[in-house]
Amino acid sequence: MKSIRSFWGGLMCLFFFNQSPLFAQTIYDQDPMQRLPIGMQLSVYQPHLPTGGQVDKTRICPPNWWVGMENPNLQLMIYDQNISQCAVKIKYPGVKVLKVHPATNPNYLFIDLQINPSAKPGKFTIVLSGSVEKTYTYELQARDRSPNRNQGLSPADNMYLIMPDRFANGDPTNDSFKDMSSDLVNRNKIYFRHGGDIQGIIDHLDYLQELGITAIWVMPLVESDQPYESYHGYAPTDHYTIDKRYGTNELYKQLVDKAHAKGIKVIMDIIHNHVGDRHWTIRDIPFKDWINQEWPTYTKSNYRDAVWIDPYASEADRRRLADGWFDSHMPDLNQRNPFLANFLLYSNLWWMEYSGQDAYRIDTYFYPEQDFMINWGKRMQQEYPGYTFFGETWVQSTLAQAQFTLGNRLSEGQRYLPAVTDFQLNYALLEAGAGKQGWTDGANRLYLTLSNDFLYQDARRNVTFLDNHDVSRALSVFNNDWKKFQTSLAALLTIRGLPCLYYGTEIGISGAGGSFGEAGRRDFIGGWREDNLNKFTAAGRSDQEEETYQLLHKLLHYRKNTPALQTGKTRHFIPEDGVYVFFRYDDAKRVMVLWNTSDKSQEHALNRYREMLSGFTAGQDVLSGKSDNLNSISIDAHSLRIIELKKP
Amino acid sequence: MKSIRSFWGGLMCLFFFNQSPLFAQTIYDQDPMQRLPIGMQLSVYQPHLPTGGQVDKTRICPPNWWVGMENPNLQLMIYDQNISQCAVKIKYPGVKVLKVHPATNPNYLFIDLQINPSAKPGKFTIVLSGSVEKTYTYELQARDRSPNRNQGLSPADNMYLIMPDRFANGDPTNDSFKDMSSDLVNRNKIYFRHGGDIQGIIDHLDYLQELGITAIWVMPLVESDQPYESYHGYAPTDHYTIDKRYGTNELYKQLVDKAHAKGIKVIMDIIHNHVGDRHWTIRDIPFKDWINQEWPTYTKSNYRDAVWIDPYASEADRRRLADGWFDSHMPDLNQRNPFLANFLLYSNLWWMEYSGQDAYRIDTYFYPEQDFMINWGKRMQQEYPGYTFFGETWVQSTLAQAQFTLGNRLSEGQRYLPAVTDFQLNYALLEAGAGKQGWTDGANRLYLTLSNDFLYQDARRNVTFLDNHDVSRALSVFNNDWKKFQTSLAALLTIRGLPCLYYGTEIGISGAGGSFGEAGRRDFIGGWREDNLNKFTAAGRSDQEEETYQLLHKLLHYRKNTPALQTGKTRHFIPEDGVYVFFRYDDAKRVMVLWNTSDKSQEHALNRYREMLSGFTAGQDVLSGKSDNLNSISIDAHSLRIIELKKP
Repeated sequence: MKSIRSFWGGLMCLFFFNQSPLFAQTIYDQDPMQRLPIGMQLSVYQPHLPTGGQVDKTRICPPNWWVGMENPNLQLMIYDQNISQCAVKIKYPGVKVLKVHPATNPNYLFIDLQINPSAKPGKFTIVLSGSVEKTYTYELQARDRSPNRNQGLSPADNMYLIMPDRFANGDPTNDSFKDMSSDLVNRNKIYFRHGGDIQGIIDHLDYLQELGITAIWVMPLVESDQPYESYHGYAPTDHYTIDKRYGTNELYKQLVDKAHAKGIKVIMDIIHNHVGDRHWTIRDIPFKDWINQEWPTYTKSNYRDAVWIDPYASEADRRRLADGWFDSHMPDLNQRNPFLANFLLYSNLWWMEYSGQDAYRIDTYFYPEQDFMINWGKRMQQEYPGYTFFGETWVQSTLAQAQFTLGNRLSEGQRYLPAVTDFQLNYALLEAGAGKQGWTDGANRLYLTLSNDFLYQDARRNVTFLDNHDVSRALSVFNNDWKKFQTSLAALLTIRGLPCLYYGTEIGISGAGGSFGEAGRRDFIGGWREDNLNKFTAAGRSDQEEETYQLLHKLLHYRKNTPALQTGKTRHFIPEDGVYVFFRYDDAKRVMVLWNTSDKSQEHALNRYREMLSGFTAGQDVLSGKSDNLNSISIDAHSLRIIELKKP
Repeated sequence: MKSIRSFWGGLMCLFFFNQSPLFAQTIYDQDPMQRLPIGMQLSVYQPHLPTGGQVDKTRICPPNWWVGMENPNLQLMIYDQNISQCAVKIKYPGVKVLKVHPATNPNYLFIDLQINPSAKPGKFTIVLSGSVEKTYTYELQARDRSPNRNQGLSPADNMYLIMPDRFANGDPTNDSFKDMSSDLVNRNKIYFRHGGDIQGIIDHLDYLQELGITAIWVMPLVESDQPYESYHGYAPTDHYTIDKRYGTNELYKQLVDKAHAKGIKVIMDIIHNHVGDRHWTIRDIPFKDWINQEWPTYTKSNYRDAVWIDPYASEADRRRLADGWFDSHMPDLNQRNPFLANFLLYSNLWWMEYSGQDAYRIDTYFYPEQDFMINWGKRMQQEYPGYTFFGETWVQSTLAQAQFTLGNRLSEGQRYLPAVTDFQLNYALLEAGAGKQGWTDGANRLYLTLSNDFLYQDARRNVTFLDNHDVSRALSVFNNDWKKFQTSLAALLTIRGLPCLYYGTEIGISGAGGSFGEAGRRDFIGGWREDNLNKFTAAGRSDQEEETYQLLHKLLHYRKNTPALQTGKTRHFIPEDGVYVFFRYDDAKRVMVLWNTSDKSQEHALNRYREMLSGFTAGQDVLSGKSDNLNSISIDAHSLRIIELKKP
């Protein structure tokens, strides 16, 4: 028995130490807010075996489907008492039963259907016969062809990552439920629920729109009825139901609709690698190999992405990466089981079609079986082509990161993942922002990281960030140096990529520490009715918070209106004296960015950049509005200038 | 005016700091041995312009050629008084003058010849007419078809890097010459000449053969008649003449022949990037653009290989890398000038054919114009196919290193370089050997580095090393810890790659510091008649030296007789507890290597490696000869076990 803290501590210390030396400075804060709930303990590992136990609720997954999908195939999973050996009959024009598969557990039955293009919307009956007789009504709906559904992302977007439990509590009546596991609401404890919800997000769509956000990535909203630490959502217990502490499926759909009405896209966060150990399919498991449990005792992953590209990798290490568990509370899904693979796939297709949401963020991308991830991506692209998903690749090199992406230079076979979370750029931005100097450090690391972009088909799709829900807040990484923080944010919004702000970054929410950056998962003050201050408004913010808000407000809108920053080309120059200079440009506009990462103010000569300045006669500072000549530019220490070039 | 020391100090501090934190520990030793010659100063940069000055010696380059080369083309460069506008006539069956090119300098003339397959060996006259009348005799020789010429390298080789000035002084009569620049012999000063020579190498071929060496890479032997620091040879002043302080062209040919007779290949070290500023073509330059001098004052390179792959690279940075000078005494050759390109190419083809040598090591590979390097490689492969050259790529990532190589996964166009000096493995070996622990450090860095081998067509060709002439001696990097040193050498000889030992490594020559590891460029004691000890013999060695010699003697011979270590496959396992385990294997043999990089002795269970142990029942320790069971293996701290697996 050991706590998650001690369990993760060793591993994550290594993670932090290597991702950036900066992290070594952020010693874990012993604030009681950051302690685990008293008495929290890990469960002892128990092998899961199909039992055919009591069915508490009959389920059909997916609960409905649509006519007119690109791919006619659908696999239904029915969960009911003692049905696995039943025969199946469906009579409906255009719908054909291709095959019926029993599970090892008598309570599951899988049905392969073919929905022909000729099928019309409507309801039909699924008849089971044999050991038991059952009928279910199933509906094929018409696809909603309204505009702005499933829009996909683009480098033109300004993304905002929301932890729903911590952003805003729009509906205090749904904070906890007696019929859910005892994960109580306690805003004083980081590891408890705080009460934020979908209504809270809906209530602040105007705020986000005004800030300049065009896409929100919301951490998992589906049910996570786990007894401890369910607030983050990455241990789902039901793939088809929004957690009622956040709202309902219908409310989620409303969120999507209302966001779309304000020009904001919605990204759902999904996990292919694991579920919570209270997931209903784990409590009554369909097959023993629904999850990976080939070892006699709990065996964690080796967390090493390298096994997928390594020509010398052992089979033992590959299995340990893919089949080892991310955490003892998170059974590791076995994507080689085709029924599990379909269960995931169809739930993901279902939410796209049901809600009209725009894209997926895929958690722990490199841990699942990669054959599955590739096939999943292919099918998802078939139904929702374009930039409709991106993967979390928390790895240590551009090479490791790019190998998973669509059209990359490294993989032998085709890949379908349009983009990744760009951790390599993150490490580099933090080093440059902190002012580290060295042949391959700081600004030079940034330069070198970007120089590897040839590995991607289009690195502008990469989701870039200064921090996220799993790491310390950037402001804290910079030791509360607001100047470095703001400067790094300005860099984030001008460098290639689809920038993502972690909620509250615009008001400088801080917090360092926790194995997964838990200390930074603080409430957005003003999101709760009982809050004394409201930082969603200028009146509630300190001077530094307001300054940061205004900077981001300005730059997000500037970026929104400047295609050169979105889809323009990049040209950059090897840093000199700690000054990194790059240009973003297209036929319409040319923007020069100078980032002085050094400790001294500089008058920086521009002669070296003449290949990019030729034909331009002056510059205008985007932030101050002041004009500049193109001979030299003065830049304060740890600051950044954004200069729009002007023709005569 | 500033010394090379201060000039290079800043840059190289960065190099060292980043290549490995270990280097940061090697503070430059202020021993007078390591000071520059008194009064040494850099020359003030002077633009070089074609002058048509006095010709001190008529030259034809190459001085002869051969019939029956694969490619019929040959470009002759003639240097004589006032000949550039002359017409050219040659009457010889099978030889055709294709074109004649004047240089800007009146003393140079270039002649494109076609040597048809029908041409017979023999002499002919080149007749120049016009402003002056001249005749030269030129010879086409038969190619020497003896066996063992131009053998090329292979992963089966055991390489040994010799700094000829410091290895052995076989001929004390050629140590200095009054008609050469004042680079005096002084064994007490690191930056002076010490008197080593080709005869010294010939005298020790038996020693090298006995040690188990199969290939020697000899640092440049061609004339370097520079006033200061010419001893390293990387500032050549004549491409066709062995420096007379080393011997003669004929003696070099003898070296090759005698080495071949003992089963030792010879690798010549060449530089495409630059020459010494006393090179005869610089003193009377053919064209202004023979060298790069587009800037008004001396401008050094930016030393950034990234510009070649970087999709965002500026033209300014590319020019600065390729056209900036490596050092103020080393004019940077402009390979875009086709006559310069040919001058280099034909000198390199000439030495292969003249001497029968086996391969080239190409200095500063990424600094020259890469189009030239590619074309050069293509032509070299045409005449001497196979692994007949490798490049020095002192860069900071496997990606940067692999991009230059034949059949790599990254480049868009074809590349011809069969192999590179594997600096990435070097950094990793030093970290692992030093016992650094971390998620991406030490043994893990080694594991991760090797996992990127998929970028190469065949990483077994990579030249691997613990140290070389440009860095601190490995024994010093390990703070004179002989155990770590010996263990790392054993790793070097078992990990994939073509291992290269720096001369004297077998007796633990030490030395840390100097911008380019000058402190390690110590004499091999016993190579000079006046030496009181002779470390070429066991009697002259200390216990630790002898122990190291015996270890290498054993492992070099074991490697020589074990194809599994040469061309066998690799399978490795993610390090656990600082123990890195890998297998080298082919159908005939399977070798398991366990490297304990940690500070504690371990009894290491082998269960995890069963996929590689299946079918084997015991192991035999290659070093001790003792038998081991395959349940667990005991390994001391910082030591390595090499276990040959046995079948029942």
